[in-house]
Amino acid sequence: MLESPENPASLLTLLSDFGDRDVYVSVMKGIIAQINPRLRVVDLTHQIPPQNIAAARFCLMNAYPYFPNGTVHIAVVDPGVGGKRRAIAIEFAGGFLIGPDNGIFSGVLSQTPAIAAVELTNSDYWRTPQPSRTFHGRDIFAPVGANLASGVPLKYLGKEINPTTLLQLGMGKCQTTSRGVLGHIQYIDHFGNLISNIPGNYAEGKTWQVQISGLTIPGCETYSDGEVGAAVALVGSHGWVEIAINGGNAHSQLQINWQDTLELINH
Amino acid sequence: MLESPENPASLLTLLSDFGDRDVYVSVMKGIIAQINPRLRVVDLTHQIPPQNIAAARFCLMNAYPYFPNGTVHIAVVDPGVGGKRRAIAIEFAGGFLIGPDNGIFSGVLSQTPAIAAVELTNSDYWRTPQPSRTFHGRDIFAPVGANLASGVPLKYLGKEINPTTLLQLGMGKCQTTSRGVLGHIQYIDHFGNLISNIPGNYAEGKTWQVQISGLTIPGCETYSDGEVGAAVALVGSHGWVEIAINGGNAHSQLQINWQDTLELINH
Amino acid sequence: MLESPENPASLLTLLSDFGDRDVYVSVMKGIIAQINPRLRVVDLTHQIPPQNIAAARFCLMNAYPYFPNGTVHIAVVDPGVGGKRRAIAIEFAGGFLIGPDNGIFSGVLSQTPAIAAVELTNSDYWRTPQPSRTFHGRDIFAPVGANLASGVPLKYLGKEINPTTLLQLGMGKCQTTSRGVLGHIQYIDHFGNLISNIPGNYAEGKTWQVQISGLTIPGCETYSDGEVGAAVALVGSHGWVEIAINGGNAHSQLQINWQDTLELINH
Repeated sequence: MLESPENPASLLTLLSDFGDRDVYVSVMKGIIAQINPRLRVVDLTHQIPPQNIAAARFCLMNAYPYFPNGTVHIAVVDPGVGGKRRAIAIEFAGGFLIGPDNGIFSGVLSQTPAIAAVELTNSDYWRTPQPSRTFHGRDIFAPVGANLASGVPLKYLGKEINPTTLLQLGMGKCQTTSRGVLGHIQYIDHFGNLISNIPGNYAEGKTWQVQISGLTIPGCETYSDGEVGAAVALVGSHGWVEIAINGGNAHSQLQINWQDTLELINH
Repeated sequence: MLESPENPASLLTLLSDFGDRDVYVSVMKGIIAQINPRLRVVDLTHQIPPQNIAAARFCLMNAYPYFPNGTVHIAVVDPGVGGKRRAIAIEFAGGFLIGPDNGIFSGVLSQTPAIAAVELTNSDYWRTPQPSRTFHGRDIFAPVGANLASGVPLKYLGKEINPTTLLQLGMGKCQTTSRGVLGHIQYIDHFGNLISNIPGNYAEGKTWQVQISGLTIPGCETYSDGEVGAAVALVGSHGWVEIAINGGNAHSQLQINWQDTLELINH
Repeated sequence: MLESPENPASLLTLLSDFGDRDVYVSVMKGIIAQINPRLRVVDLTHQIPPQNIAAARFCLMNAYPYFPNGTVHIAVVDPGVGGKRRAIAIEFAGGFLIGPDNGIFSGVLSQTPAIAAVELTNSDYWRTPQPSRTFHGRDIFAPVGANLASGVPLKYLGKEINPTTLLQLGMGKCQTTSRGVLGHIQYIDHFGNLISNIPGNYAEGKTWQVQISGLTIPGCETYSDGEVGAAVALVGSHGWVEIAINGGNAHSQLQINWQDTLELINH
């Protein structure tokens, strides 16, 4: 059992596409408890659509800033498990990321600079030197994360790599237009709210509106600014421009989908 | 980091309609861990149907009695977020409730007297003095709850309000009849069990039965008292009269729904 | 409040078919926190299909080995609650199991020998001497588990019973054939992977393949060994031979179901 005197957080988070029917997630928690029973674990979400790296990237980027310094985030959306993709850990001023080098971390990397990164080559910190070909969450990421959260220095975990070599997932940037800015829907949440990739500071006009899929939707301040059943555009809690229906589900009712294009127009 | 020497529980619970796909819940947990990493958090449920205040009221009322004294319950089913509804905290002998003043707490209030209540007007205990218009769970309720669970007195959190002014959600009471009592279905659980608003002590006859939707269902003591596939009425673990099918799903098989009327008849 | 000086884990796990919509699971956690707020609780899963003892047996058997010594596992898939089935606790070298004696534990029992077992007859450790007829998870299993995880010896919990009398759930064994081994699908996971009851060490040929439902599927080492969309057989992380589709869902795409027969053929 490891002591964790130097780590202020002793906190891990888990994100995956494992769902909640099986014991994959709890097995990772059992492994973590075996290494250090004092560690705490928070689930970010395990309902990432199977193998959807873009959704995982979005969720991780939006949750990361709200956790204590030193938190270790383990993310396992890993269609290439057992293949050639690298297993990595990255250190930031505010915490650590652990998982496959497949673009899952490129959202956080776009917002905050990496201090250091390693490829997880030191099997001393794995559950076994012969890991399963299909479940690195259990055999590599969970035990490495538990050690890191317990105070093991990053550099012990494997060979140093240059953070600039980490896989970036191009998400498409917004383009300014004569009237405002063009973007697309990058995420759809549980309420059916349509979250664009347009940062909220583009909604800078005295009044503004969004055009999407033949609709013109007024810019508002909060969900209840529209009448019940009316579509509204607003700057959501994530900081992105989003489209919602007061008391309804914009995704199913407006038939707008992932990746659809929208234009924000300022007046 | 706050110490929590005077609070015996240091325990929070979270209830919401946020679902489990997004990081809204975990962001609240990150905020709580930033304020006091020693606090423990239990999820009541995050699968309240979107904006269904009645279901939230029912779940909270039924979970509340089973938690340690001093537990802080944060409930965020909040269709009026960013509008005029008050953000409140309520103190009871057995714990605290935090959330919007929209009726969500009226079940607990119907069962146990409030000692004091405040409107959450003191932004010193918020995440930021400029909270998001759409996510008070993150910016107000979670940080206020973490402070309260860490020993900050209720009165520091805002201006005192009279508990009698808190919004009550009328749920319809039972009506006694010549044969027994009339009520309605107030909740349907994961198993399809149909939970009425008739308290179990009305099932007082030597034998009793329930009439609903043209059916007559015998009163029993436990699910397996009926044959497999047979409908039974019984006093459920919540203390309410409920209807179940032994080995089946009463909701889908009997086509009975939320708010349907039933009569309990004693012999 | 109990101290827990002798128990190295102070960790409980919960498994049930309660789903995540209702407060049944959180009520059990509230009870546990009332008895000993220092205990930690990990959810194995609460999405066991209602009353599916075989799925619960499989999940428990596959999670059990990964938890610290002394962990107390509470499992509540309990169609006979309130009837004649016994409520039991079992001690192993590596931990404890608590729940109904209905076969749910027979997977763990097939892999590791029981040291002792008791029927939970001592109501001093229940929540109330008059437990609900429908929710022993709350009134018996959670409080007994919290006491056990806090250091109460097994023998205090009720009358000793012979572990050989515990209900075994026959799962059907594999049968060797002239070409390899015959088995069946014993579990289907969230990804649609079809997990057989054939242990991985039967895949011993230089090359091997699986025949099922008129298909011949090549034995591989990892999901990505096949082309995207191709079915592959492999030894999964649980240690069983399983069938998957690279980038797809074998359950829905191949129309193979629980209990379907397969043959593994070595060359």
